[in-house]
Amino acid sequence: MDKKFDRIKIQTLQNKVITAEGAAEIIKDGMTLGLSGFTRAGDVKAVPVALVERAKTESIRVNVYTGASLGSDVDKLFAEAGIINKRLPFQADPTMRKGINQGDFLFVDQHLSHTAELIRSNVMAVDIAILEAVSIEADGMIIPTTSIGNSLSFAECADAIIIEINLSQAEGLKGLHDLYSPGKQGEREPIPLTKVSDRIGAMGIKVNPEKIKAIVFTNQEDSPSTIVKPDDETVIMAKHLTNFLRKEIEAGRLTEKLAPLQSGIGSVANAVLHGMIDSEFNDLEVYSEVLQDAVFDLMDAGKVKYASCCSITLSDEKMKEVFANFDQYRDKLIMRPQEISNHPELIRRLGLISINTALELDIYGNVNSTHVQGTRMMNGIGGSGDFARNARLAIFVTKSIAKDGKISSIVPFVSHVDHTEHDVDVIVTEQGYADLRGLAPRERVELIIENCAHPMYRDQLRDYYYDALTNGGQTPHNLEKAFSWHINFMKNGTMMQSEMVESN
Amino acid sequence: MDKKFDRIKIQTLQNKVITAEGAAEIIKDGMTLGLSGFTRAGDVKAVPVALVERAKTESIRVNVYTGASLGSDVDKLFAEAGIINKRLPFQADPTMRKGINQGDFLFVDQHLSHTAELIRSNVMAVDIAILEAVSIEADGMIIPTTSIGNSLSFAECADAIIIEINLSQAEGLKGLHDLYSPGKQGEREPIPLTKVSDRIGAMGIKVNPEKIKAIVFTNQEDSPSTIVKPDDETVIMAKHLTNFLRKEIEAGRLTEKLAPLQSGIGSVANAVLHGMIDSEFNDLEVYSEVLQDAVFDLMDAGKVKYASCCSITLSDEKMKEVFANFDQYRDKLIMRPQEISNHPELIRRLGLISINTALELDIYGNVNSTHVQGTRMMNGIGGSGDFARNARLAIFVTKSIAKDGKISSIVPFVSHVDHTEHDVDVIVTEQGYADLRGLAPRERVELIIENCAHPMYRDQLRDYYYDALTNGGQTPHNLEKAFSWHINFMKNGTMMQSEMVESN
Repeated sequence: MDKKFDRIKIQTLQNKVITAEGAAEIIKDGMTLGLSGFTRAGDVKAVPVALVERAKTESIRVNVYTGASLGSDVDKLFAEAGIINKRLPFQADPTMRKGINQGDFLFVDQHLSHTAELIRSNVMAVDIAILEAVSIEADGMIIPTTSIGNSLSFAECADAIIIEINLSQAEGLKGLHDLYSPGKQGEREPIPLTKVSDRIGAMGIKVNPEKIKAIVFTNQEDSPSTIVKPDDETVIMAKHLTNFLRKEIEAGRLTEKLAPLQSGIGSVANAVLHGMIDSEFNDLEVYSEVLQDAVFDLMDAGKVKYASCCSITLSDEKMKEVFANFDQYRDKLIMRPQEISNHPELIRRLGLISINTALELDIYGNVNSTHVQGTRMMNGIGGSGDFARNARLAIFVTKSIAKDGKISSIVPFVSHVDHTEHDVDVIVTEQGYADLRGLAPRERVELIIENCAHPMYRDQLRDYYYDALTNGGQTPHNLEKAFSWHINFMKNGTMMQSEMVESN
Repeated sequence: MDKKFDRIKIQTLQNKVITAEGAAEIIKDGMTLGLSGFTRAGDVKAVPVALVERAKTESIRVNVYTGASLGSDVDKLFAEAGIINKRLPFQADPTMRKGINQGDFLFVDQHLSHTAELIRSNVMAVDIAILEAVSIEADGMIIPTTSIGNSLSFAECADAIIIEINLSQAEGLKGLHDLYSPGKQGEREPIPLTKVSDRIGAMGIKVNPEKIKAIVFTNQEDSPSTIVKPDDETVIMAKHLTNFLRKEIEAGRLTEKLAPLQSGIGSVANAVLHGMIDSEFNDLEVYSEVLQDAVFDLMDAGKVKYASCCSITLSDEKMKEVFANFDQYRDKLIMRPQEISNHPELIRRLGLISINTALELDIYGNVNSTHVQGTRMMNGIGGSGDFARNARLAIFVTKSIAKDGKISSIVPFVSHVDHTEHDVDVIVTEQGYADLRGLAPRERVELIIENCAHPMYRDQLRDYYYDALTNGGQTPHNLEKAFSWHINFMKNGTMMQSEMVESN
């Protein structure tokens, strides 16, 4: 027998090996699928493609639940094939995004820690879990690959499981994972994790082998991340963040070890984290969802001593480097379900420093992470809400302008609210930072405009505020003009007032 | 010596007894005061009044931090005297509200579980803690009265403590309180509470007696709650909520014991909870901030077997009844710091059913709890964010219209966001309920309009939505009209479109 069958250590299960096409036949119209995959890592790569193939000759629509975004163009293929009924809790594919915004199918934008709760409590049901694995152990343990996402709860709650064993992923990944399920609400014990490096669960996903209905072999690497390298502005943002953290050390609120770091997906957050390489901070720990290149660069530089994550999503270059030398990272890494990486209990207990990207923010510190012009979905809130609400420090980063200054990231009133003023501690742009903790709205305005807004928009923001101030109020606004910047952009392609057409 | 001195069981401290005026002299201009008091219960009643008196002849401004709202007209007196610089994290007094909205002083609207974290981590400092107590025990334990609020963290972090021993509160309250401090973030153990009735801390606030600089005797009862009795509409709302919970039982997601209940402050939430008296639900538990009349009525009816709270705030009538027969409630009650009553770790672990009041909500399920017309503060977010984000069920209740129909509580776009669509599970009005779990924005609209909006506004809401839908998007909006209802109300005194003046 082919050596690859050694990856299936339960002999009876070896008979379940079929083609991806065969496995896709198990899926029925109207079903809900729970797919492994979190920010392009550890996603299933064959069965979804076979399902799309099947949909060419057959009318089929399914709900697709995942950890977060998928790689391997799976979301693109799903969207193009028109086989999605409902997608959740996160995606990042341009074609899928287009379909969502056209109303071709439904998208539910959920806190990434919430999905597992809704599935476990049977508010949302999963019919089939389709999970990528490096192996199935003799005790029925499924060893995941480069992400865990919601795979544990999908496996627990689904009626059937399809496994894709990815031969391109080394069996050496075994031991990296820590699978802990908190159990039902109301019947739970405290989650016994008090340090970033604590191991609290199992090495894999323990299932009843009878639930495994099909096994497919694949041999395709994860899609590399699409992160762009730090630029001049993100380097400056990293400096502002470092300066803020230095002030916290001076005030005795942090030490040079800082506190466990969380950094959201995306180029800006990655670049800001990367900027810590040149800082005096050391012995750092990371407790985050996704580990991007920056965390491994920080490990290589001896700055990060331990990192807990839910997925590893790297550039092509860094992926080759890390997995070729995996043994040097092994004792510094642990991977958990997203429910645990993003759990409010743990975020609050560990006192994370949380760094996430804002799409736009307003003069009072409310943050829009998801909706362009208040209507069109970008990717989703992801874990930013899980972290910002409960972290020691909820930091949001953004460049102060976009589209060559046609858009100000700082506006009078955000066109969609994902994070309220109650949850936003610090804002960092390339202009500077605003520490909003303990400040009233009227105090926040000054800091945000002076320290974070782009100079080209400061007067215009002040004009809005002073006008609003004549109405009084805890949070002065002029609702007739609150969205005028967005409206001007839609009509005239810029938020600049001098280029505004009088609305009459 | 006067028998009242028996309340001070450390003899050296008996020498610290002075007049309220004397105690107020300890307070210096510019200081930050941490006052006991949560929703009118257990507030200090003499020293604040003496401070206000002193301010008549002396220029003095202080920051006032509390648990939540105060009774005894203290916030009114503070506001009238103009001695406030900054007030946080919650208030509910009309005069103070007016001052806040005029910008006479600053108000920070915080999640009630966050204040203690900010103080403990020295982001916000407290100079003097002023705490109401029934007694000071021989071991230096301060026994609080009818609320705990932030008193533990104020006492731990302040340089000096002033105690008001309230002789109108029976020493028999001793044993009711459970004081647990989670300690510093990053150095914490799990909070060892897995059942509503678990006792995890001390019977009082243990302090170094040397920090107690003054003790004042008072003899004034708490201000009774201003709750209005259930009316026809709140009775119907309670029925809708009961029907929803019954469906959850049918679906196997709850039993007749439901799950620990949290109910926000206010007449509507109280009335809705009160409606459970006539339900089949039994053996109920409550894990909430404030216990209002309804919880004791439910206890009297044999429906509630145990209640954990942070304060007890009752109507005049119920207060007399409960405290005259306190022994019959003693073994069914426990009182905790607001950081623990509102702790995300515990809310999520216990799987609360959380019921809070919305001021307005929009067609996608975003909730405004605080700002009238997006600008003027009512009371504050209170604990609603702590609960809604982490509860098993985040339920928001509101009547569908206000001001005889001039205002629709359901609008196209809320004028302020306190709870995002990500955190709102179920909406209940007198029209019905909308279960939004697992639904995309376009699905939510239908349910909210059909089930919750007042019939007189349904067509107008549909018109907005269908118009917005032509723009497409995950969350269709027309930003030019998003606030048109609010603007119409400001200009014409109604949100009704037929009465709208063309804006031109």
